[in-house]
Amino acid sequence: MAGNSIGQLFRVTTFGESHGVALGCIIDGCPPGVEISEEIIQKDLDRRRPGTSRYTTQRREPDQVKILSGVFEGKTTGTSIGLLIENTDQRSKDYSNIKDMFRPGHADYTYHQKYGTRDYRGGGRSSARETAMRVAAGVIAKEYLKQQHGVDIRGYLSELGPVKAENIDFEQIEQNPFFFPDASKLEQLDEFMRALKKEGDSIGARLSIVATQVPVGLGEPVFDRLDADIAHALMGINAVKAVEIGDGFAVVNQRGSEHRDEMTPQGFSSNHAGGVLGGISSGQDVIAHIALKPTSSITVPGQTIDKFGQPVEVVTKGRHDPCVGIRAVPIAEAMLAIVLMDHCLRQRGQNGAVSTDTPILR
Amino acid sequence: MAGNSIGQLFRVTTFGESHGVALGCIIDGCPPGVEISEEIIQKDLDRRRPGTSRYTTQRREPDQVKILSGVFEGKTTGTSIGLLIENTDQRSKDYSNIKDMFRPGHADYTYHQKYGTRDYRGGGRSSARETAMRVAAGVIAKEYLKQQHGVDIRGYLSELGPVKAENIDFEQIEQNPFFFPDASKLEQLDEFMRALKKEGDSIGARLSIVATQVPVGLGEPVFDRLDADIAHALMGINAVKAVEIGDGFAVVNQRGSEHRDEMTPQGFSSNHAGGVLGGISSGQDVIAHIALKPTSSITVPGQTIDKFGQPVEVVTKGRHDPCVGIRAVPIAEAMLAIVLMDHCLRQRGQNGAVSTDTPILR
Amino acid sequence: MAGNSIGQLFRVTTFGESHGVALGCIIDGCPPGVEISEEIIQKDLDRRRPGTSRYTTQRREPDQVKILSGVFEGKTTGTSIGLLIENTDQRSKDYSNIKDMFRPGHADYTYHQKYGTRDYRGGGRSSARETAMRVAAGVIAKEYLKQQHGVDIRGYLSELGPVKAENIDFEQIEQNPFFFPDASKLEQLDEFMRALKKEGDSIGARLSIVATQVPVGLGEPVFDRLDADIAHALMGINAVKAVEIGDGFAVVNQRGSEHRDEMTPQGFSSNHAGGVLGGISSGQDVIAHIALKPTSSITVPGQTIDKFGQPVEVVTKGRHDPCVGIRAVPIAEAMLAIVLMDHCLRQRGQNGAVSTDTPILR
Amino acid sequence: MAGNSIGQLFRVTTFGESHGVALGCIIDGCPPGVEISEEIIQKDLDRRRPGTSRYTTQRREPDQVKILSGVFEGKTTGTSIGLLIENTDQRSKDYSNIKDMFRPGHADYTYHQKYGTRDYRGGGRSSARETAMRVAAGVIAKEYLKQQHGVDIRGYLSELGPVKAENIDFEQIEQNPFFFPDASKLEQLDEFMRALKKEGDSIGARLSIVATQVPVGLGEPVFDRLDADIAHALMGINAVKAVEIGDGFAVVNQRGSEHRDEMTPQGFSSNHAGGVLGGISSGQDVIAHIALKPTSSITVPGQTIDKFGQPVEVVTKGRHDPCVGIRAVPIAEAMLAIVLMDHCLRQRGQNGAVSTDTPILR
Repeated sequence: MAGNSIGQLFRVTTFGESHGVALGCIIDGCPPGVEISEEIIQKDLDRRRPGTSRYTTQRREPDQVKILSGVFEGKTTGTSIGLLIENTDQRSKDYSNIKDMFRPGHADYTYHQKYGTRDYRGGGRSSARETAMRVAAGVIAKEYLKQQHGVDIRGYLSELGPVKAENIDFEQIEQNPFFFPDASKLEQLDEFMRALKKEGDSIGARLSIVATQVPVGLGEPVFDRLDADIAHALMGINAVKAVEIGDGFAVVNQRGSEHRDEMTPQGFSSNHAGGVLGGISSGQDVIAHIALKPTSSITVPGQTIDKFGQPVEVVTKGRHDPCVGIRAVPIAEAMLAIVLMDHCLRQRGQNGAVSTDTPILR
Repeated sequence: MAGNSIGQLFRVTTFGESHGVALGCIIDGCPPGVEISEEIIQKDLDRRRPGTSRYTTQRREPDQVKILSGVFEGKTTGTSIGLLIENTDQRSKDYSNIKDMFRPGHADYTYHQKYGTRDYRGGGRSSARETAMRVAAGVIAKEYLKQQHGVDIRGYLSELGPVKAENIDFEQIEQNPFFFPDASKLEQLDEFMRALKKEGDSIGARLSIVATQVPVGLGEPVFDRLDADIAHALMGINAVKAVEIGDGFAVVNQRGSEHRDEMTPQGFSSNHAGGVLGGISSGQDVIAHIALKPTSSITVPGQTIDKFGQPVEVVTKGRHDPCVGIRAVPIAEAMLAIVLMDHCLRQRGQNGAVSTDTPILR
Repeated sequence: MAGNSIGQLFRVTTFGESHGVALGCIIDGCPPGVEISEEIIQKDLDRRRPGTSRYTTQRREPDQVKILSGVFEGKTTGTSIGLLIENTDQRSKDYSNIKDMFRPGHADYTYHQKYGTRDYRGGGRSSARETAMRVAAGVIAKEYLKQQHGVDIRGYLSELGPVKAENIDFEQIEQNPFFFPDASKLEQLDEFMRALKKEGDSIGARLSIVATQVPVGLGEPVFDRLDADIAHALMGINAVKAVEIGDGFAVVNQRGSEHRDEMTPQGFSSNHAGGVLGGISSGQDVIAHIALKPTSSITVPGQTIDKFGQPVEVVTKGRHDPCVGIRAVPIAEAMLAIVLMDHCLRQRGQNGAVSTDTPILR
Repeated sequence: MAGNSIGQLFRVTTFGESHGVALGCIIDGCPPGVEISEEIIQKDLDRRRPGTSRYTTQRREPDQVKILSGVFEGKTTGTSIGLLIENTDQRSKDYSNIKDMFRPGHADYTYHQKYGTRDYRGGGRSSARETAMRVAAGVIAKEYLKQQHGVDIRGYLSELGPVKAENIDFEQIEQNPFFFPDASKLEQLDEFMRALKKEGDSIGARLSIVATQVPVGLGEPVFDRLDADIAHALMGINAVKAVEIGDGFAVVNQRGSEHRDEMTPQGFSSNHAGGVLGGISSGQDVIAHIALKPTSSITVPGQTIDKFGQPVEVVTKGRHDPCVGIRAVPIAEAMLAIVLMDHCLRQRGQNGAVSTDTPILR
């Protein structure tokens, strides 16, 4: 099956190149009756948008979304929803010098080998610009989850290079351009980023995403487990190299007596599992963490080859984020929302109802 | 879509409960001409089989696989392949005491909430016994990849609790019951396991899986990336809580100038990416790491509730591995093989050929 | 995607060759709580079974089905259901003479060209024997539809060669070996078949299938319409060459004023549409008709070529039905049941409920 | 899975309502290197476009297609292709009177029951206007098939009410507004249509579609047979009520000795099968026929009910075709092209190559 779709019952398909005419997506399978508007989608797009701070790329695009179908009188109708963002700020000249070379850390070489051709302007389809449509589609999933089940999904930057959030204050996240929850370390973060920019280098990041009020029972054993589908969706974000659910890699040195979340009539005693047991949501918070590699487009010169196999030096100019991880927060939220919504519909289809009303534990 | 299938063009669907009549699977989409036999499948099944050492469950099952269709005169015909393993050692009595309670760390509660019913005998469908069919199906993928492209896939135990392999000797892996590559630490491992068993507790593990000679060009942007599909397949293994590709979480504190793998006419200078760039295989080794939580079935008593919401104490008897991670090595290999094979076929379908013959780099 | 599966949420995957070890299938996505037993599946298998009358092939196979998983204490559990029928009466010698030739009207040539190889024994995978598993899976769908929605599905032979049923008496259908609803023409039918058998020739057939009490609202526009999915399922039965919904080809010479089914507060005034409007079920009876070609395996000699391109004469011996259409009645019922059930689950997933309780019309 | 997609490896997903902002589609899985332009897509759109003759609706829309992505320097790149047609002539007022009633023969009632809401303007999503995007996507498939395999696909009107084409002259088809291949009956057809229009009534039609130079080996047994997928695609066109492959319903009264297409070293002696054997293309012409019901929107008054269950009289005004079948010719061609292309890619994926070079017969 072609690869530009995600989800089974709630299915998102995207198109668009960084420097093409437009980006767009089709959201298929959204139930009727979800309240949705261009304004509410725009709000999350603006969170992801470049040019919002001096730490993100200076490329300025309004990223104005249009709803083309599937919404009538303010609500979804059950038919497929078309969304469109026209590209307006395309400086394709910037990229002509990399036409024949493979930038290290980028998809240039692999696209060339896979397709025998590529739209080299701004990374073409492999550009992070593509993720704008994921954010847009994710808003519809977020709204459904909130309106139907009270689910709330929030992401934040938990680590950036050596700077690690220790105090997780959800109120803080939207108060700074880093989606960073620890106010006490903002100055340190700011200094680190400024030094990095001066060096022309980039840095990796760790993001955390939490969904609360998740209905129990989501996830289809044995392959389409909720955690497996979350891993698929999050690892599919540009630059992501690792995914954890709950305690993640920390389990390697945990004992069973420590890790297993005991249950009492008042609920689970802990949440090492991150809200998923046997691939099915337990009703606890769903918690995931991801690692994003440092931006490969940096002004530090690097060695590479061109398509004739000859060695060349590459210095990326263009406009780029020193840490792609920062802007990935709304993308990660969107992907988690898409997976949870898809599994709500699957659970409803397979088992008649999403069992929010009947869990033994709350 | 129902959840017991994985893969698009190479598609594996499984059935079977721990204490039911039989386990089985259908492998759909295997090209004709792959040499396959019950013997070669059995070999990997025996690697996964319980009862092979004193560190794994003492439940003894021959796990004898039968090929029911799709193979004629020693080769696949292109039609669907049916495999079957009959259950022979079913001590269902062992489980009657847990019929109404939810074992902590297990899927009992979530299955109950999802389906309103469950086959409680031995974990039913959520038992790791189900993975036997994944191993069997994986052998067919391994054989295809080896016969067609020379791909070799190997997994090993890289960490178990506090014991970490430092010297990775692939020759060592099959020489000990732990799939452990570092002979110098085998004694330490053995001691740790013996102490653990005495305590009746369990421990987590970290596994590593490496595929060599992977064709360049595998993976479908933007959602069905090779790394995203690997994450889906590996996170879908029982007890797995985290997946890394290449440097994984280490990228959080890497610089772009350090992480990006430079290219020279002689090849890539490093492999931080783990063989995947922009979601597409680069022709380098594909490297993944996973974390498996400690077995939840331990003899240390724990608190839980029954299906009436009442508190009860649980002490698992039955026969269980103190570290489920160990036996997961062949399962992880199988899952990686299934994903790689599926993407070989998808690449062939979408782009006419798997581009092994034409890579600029080798 | 590999081709041995049908359905999205209710998904049936089959395997097995005519003269292999066994036939089997996996039914994935069946909701929990459906009452099912080997006996009830066996009943429909016996209706399809060869050797039940002198007009069908004398090959005798008990076709004894076994439930291997997914059913616990008489009810489905929500996990995947494995079914198995072992092959017992395999006279593979019968087919050695056709090993290298392409029987006209059969799939020999196309399988050979597609796969470069084939299991020639008894048609291998292209044998109608494969449909036994469809019948078995269809029983589960029939039971679900009956138990949940009161749906009843019945098929009958409406034409065989020149003999056409005029009086459709549903009570009559199971009273004769032809599934023929018109008792007044049974003698004519019997005579026609006897003459045909003497000639060693075969004949085509037209079947009709009717589902009553179908919930309104099933079918997903715009491609996975209910009628489109029915057409897919019925055309996928061996030997079927045509499918009609409702008035079918008769609409070519109908006027709009005649065809459109008017509505009154008491219900629809007619059912030219066959229960589907805009691809969605209307709550009226779903009516389909199919045409099955005459059996290609006949004792009348025919011209063909072998795999070296040389001309040869073919005379099929073996054991074959003079009219494959007759035994296809339970197969067609099963396929319709599978499609309807799949769309019940899809409707439930996409729209929250199958709207049986709320239709304006009944 | 949501229903607005068709195809597996070559996958078309559409959106758009009759009176919404725009129609669009995403074509996912098109291999790189196919030459494509807006002009060549426009050509087929113009064949389908309303307002081209006095026998089709007078609604005038330029239906101007834009390529938004996936094409670079005149060729496809392998990434997803976005197409867009903006709606320009939307007279939504025309439809306000039918807001609360269910037009007989239309999808009003079924959409209302399925979704609990509907965009009633011009039929919304159920309007035949949606098929414009199918035609556009079909052009890409046609071009691929022609450029890669020399496949040619042509449709024509074979019957309209009582007027039946007897002389099939392919040169004639594009010379008249009916896609009618029999010049000797054009006057009769013209007279019939004029009389029909005067009466304010409508009529059904039969279309035939033929694909030549189809590679042998396309189609995946046992469910995704080529003929099954063709039936799905054609039955999914608005107003279609029946599909035949090859001789179709005529097989009911054919003998095996007559129907089976014999083979000689020079090729098949006949083509009763319509180019498909055992669900796989034989290399002969693929031939399909479909029946389209008469337009339901007619000026003849009819009985119906409103959404409160009350009886009302309906007289459709708006602008409508007296025979929707005529304009369906390019749609049917497009659907056949999409199915054939999808199976070319599937065959390539599953079996390594589309076997055009090696057929024993030509």
